Amino acid sequence: MIQKFKSYALEKWVEGEGQGQVILHAVTGEPLGEVSSRGLDFKAMLNYARTIGGPAIRCMTFHERALLLKNMAKYLMERKEEFYTLSTATGATRADSWVDIEGGIATFFAYSGIGRREFPNETFHLETDVSPLSKSGSFIGRHICTPLDGTAVHINAFNFPCWGMLEKLVTTFLAGMPAIVKSASQTCYLTEKMVAAMIESGLLPEGVLQLICGSVGDLFEHLGSQDVVTFTGSATTGRKLKSHPNIIEKAIRFNMEADSLNCIILGPDVTPEMEEFTIFIKEVVREMTAKAGQKCTAIRRTIVPEGMTKSVIDALKQRLTTVQVGHPEAEGVRMGTLAGLDQVKEVQERVAELLQGAELVFGEHEEFEVVDADRTKGAFYEPTLLYCAEPLRIDSVHEIEAFGPVNTVMPYADLEEAIRLAAKGGGSLVASVVTADDVIARKLVLGIAPHHGRVLVLNRESAPESTGHGSPMSALVHGGPGRAWRR
Amino acid sequence: MIQKFKSYALEKWVEGEGQGQVILHAVTGEPLGEVSSRGLDFKAMLNYARTIGGPAIRCMTFHERALLLKNMAKYLMERKEEFYTLSTATGATRADSWVDIEGGIATFFAYSGIGRREFPNETFHLETDVSPLSKSGSFIGRHICTPLDGTAVHINAFNFPCWGMLEKLVTTFLAGMPAIVKSASQTCYLTEKMVAAMIESGLLPEGVLQLICGSVGDLFEHLGSQDVVTFTGSATTGRKLKSHPNIIEKAIRFNMEADSLNCIILGPDVTPEMEEFTIFIKEVVREMTAKAGQKCTAIRRTIVPEGMTKSVIDALKQRLTTVQVGHPEAEGVRMGTLAGLDQVKEVQERVAELLQGAELVFGEHEEFEVVDADRTKGAFYEPTLLYCAEPLRIDSVHEIEAFGPVNTVMPYADLEEAIRLAAKGGGSLVASVVTADDVIARKLVLGIAPHHGRVLVLNRESAPESTGHGSPMSALVHGGPGRAWRR
Repeated sequence: MIQKFKSYALEKWVEGEGQGQVILHAVTGEPLGEVSSRGLDFKAMLNYARTIGGPAIRCMTFHERALLLKNMAKYLMERKEEFYTLSTATGATRADSWVDIEGGIATFFAYSGIGRREFPNETFHLETDVSPLSKSGSFIGRHICTPLDGTAVHINAFNFPCWGMLEKLVTTFLAGMPAIVKSASQTCYLTEKMVAAMIESGLLPEGVLQLICGSVGDLFEHLGSQDVVTFTGSATTGRKLKSHPNIIEKAIRFNMEADSLNCIILGPDVTPEMEEFTIFIKEVVREMTAKAGQKCTAIRRTIVPEGMTKSVIDALKQRLTTVQVGHPEAEGVRMGTLAGLDQVKEVQERVAELLQGAELVFGEHEEFEVVDADRTKGAFYEPTLLYCAEPLRIDSVHEIEAFGPVNTVMPYADLEEAIRLAAKGGGSLVASVVTADDVIARKLVLGIAPHHGRVLVLNRESAPESTGHGSPMSALVHGGPGRAWRR
Repeated sequence: MIQKFKSYALEKWVEGEGQGQVILHAVTGEPLGEVSSRGLDFKAMLNYARTIGGPAIRCMTFHERALLLKNMAKYLMERKEEFYTLSTATGATRADSWVDIEGGIATFFAYSGIGRREFPNETFHLETDVSPLSKSGSFIGRHICTPLDGTAVHINAFNFPCWGMLEKLVTTFLAGMPAIVKSASQTCYLTEKMVAAMIESGLLPEGVLQLICGSVGDLFEHLGSQDVVTFTGSATTGRKLKSHPNIIEKAIRFNMEADSLNCIILGPDVTPEMEEFTIFIKEVVREMTAKAGQKCTAIRRTIVPEGMTKSVIDALKQRLTTVQVGHPEAEGVRMGTLAGLDQVKEVQERVAELLQGAELVFGEHEEFEVVDADRTKGAFYEPTLLYCAEPLRIDSVHEIEAFGPVNTVMPYADLEEAIRLAAKGGGSLVASVVTADDVIARKLVLGIAPHHGRVLVLNRESAPESTGHGSPMSALVHGGPGRAWRR
């Protein structure tokens, strides 16, 4: 009998009833455990958060909440190796896990600083100075931010079982709200471990954090106008939840992060001899292979001057050939697996769709080499590069997100066309612009800005210290318009 | 043959095809004209705004846009009497029209100042300082705001045919976007007049402003991810539009302002002898009668200490008796009509629903007196006061908005109960708190803040210069959570 992963509700760890979904090790295919949330009382969980957790964290000042974040970050850092151990089962390499685990914990450190620097030692926040509204000053206005009375429900994706939860919890707690986290089943065991550590820290007030492993059941029926829902995952599920009658009826805050067809644009000034060319190629390959391409910010579209298409494809192919795929713990392995076999099937299907408007230039080798693992048992997927010759005509390459190590190269004639191609993504989280020419950078940045949450400019000066295309920075506001991010 | 009100599309005034909806004078019941948008090419209107209007206003700097706003405001002010003349047909008194017409034009003046003071003489806005992201400073971040590439579609309510449009246009234009306004049919003739004046001013770049009189046809099918929709009107229509497949699919920005069960709370410290009591009574009656209660910010719920119920109802009744209802231009008339006979029926139905959980204390007189007009032909509705003895048990008084001169008095036992009652509105635009005790004010403000966009504190010091419960201030951010305002 295999173990059941547990939910944490009303200060108790509870197993779901009946048979659950069996979760497999992404690399070996061995069963890890079962997950089910049947029998959980979701209404009671919401009420518990609202009546016990909410008041407890609301009465703390911003500085007290910031201190809690710092202490929690320290505590979790001390236990980090426990998370790394489990993380291998998700198919992540040590470098991938670092982003998820230490990157996630780092948000707690960062927001602790923000909380102490930018907010008062009070339970509310004076957002602006006083606005005089009358002549003699007896009638004035001021913007004050106070915590909502409800609960934040965070529905997370499988690709970042730690960071995906922690980066949402950190703003929730700093804002003085309790949270209920719904982990993605595929990687729930790592989220469960992280939540257990947070609870064991003894730092959290009662009712401030609960966890659902398994489905959300009838939770949406019980949401109220003071609750907040965030969703990270597939557009299909997201749209369904966003149009839930109760969400529409009560105008419940709903934040959705779904598909994002992020792009990188190579400036027309860059030749293969320039440093910027190498920077560009490295960035594309890194974005394809990090987390095996399972990042919402990963580059999906590589937009290059038409005269540079061959040079870019040749350089990418050369570099992709050297990427070792295999067991994440094996020496020299650069890329692990997808999160599970379902994901392999999913990505295969999306690639098949993309191939109707693009040609294959790298990947889909009959039997690609895998280090220290059984290719047929693990969720392995080879890096895959496509080329679309007519990207203004073919919509699919701008609309279909293959959530794996998959990228499509496409040519542009002039800057205006590059901007049009970027915009065809219908709104993305991030785009990168690689150029050594500041005038070109300015034109591209202002041209694509309305369609992006973030634009990264890379050249020989910024690249050495840059954290790269895909990494959000705690000091900045992220998101994106349209397809990528919905409020 | 009566006239047809026109739409303004692709720089032409066009009449809708076929027979339109007949619009009646709200006071006399005489037909004013017909309205229809049949035959308009909504897709072409969107494309025209995006391709002609957008680029034209985007390339102006904030200071140039601010100057345009100021010049437009001056121009419209010179023609204001034309608007007042037409406004009478909506049932508005001169004081009501002042809010709509001069209040609307005033937003152009106010945002002209904001544009020059708070924004750069550039086409984009540097929202924050540089955020250092690396040790040696070669990798930095900055938040830049740029105009969207799309069109703002503003769907407006019948109650403010000028202000409702102008307060939306002012932010649209300052942000560098073109707009398509859809006026409410009932009062479209006044919006048409205002748009005509703006076009005649010659100040607007081509394609920046278009008008739809009549329905929006298939416009929603053609919206894209760079467009923005704002909706002010009934919750039923708003929810339908908000869940439109194209809005959900492309994650189109949708801002909805619908029902708001705004309240006023009388502090437990206030006795009938205090100035605050008089201030309170005046405010309630003003909110019931201004615009005949047809304001989204109007007070619908009057929350009073249980011991004060009788004093409050007596004082309100006494004052309501003196309110003269009649032809808006007649001497001494304080309250005009609703926007039309449909609205009278609508309010009657809502009041009937409210009366299932509340009792009538003023209004519904068989034949109430009407000055200088035929009560049976105009959209007259008598001020109506209800009392709900058990407001914690009865949900309807917190949920049903009778959009007319209708208000429900309800008792509370202690501050916590007053806060719970306010919160039962499920999110409102504004609440007022009347008290002479700053500790009580603080408790009430912080308690009800999560449920409101604005909280007005009234006492003998702030009241003389206060613009009152219902008036939004250009210097402040407005809105509200939950039922009242949806993003």
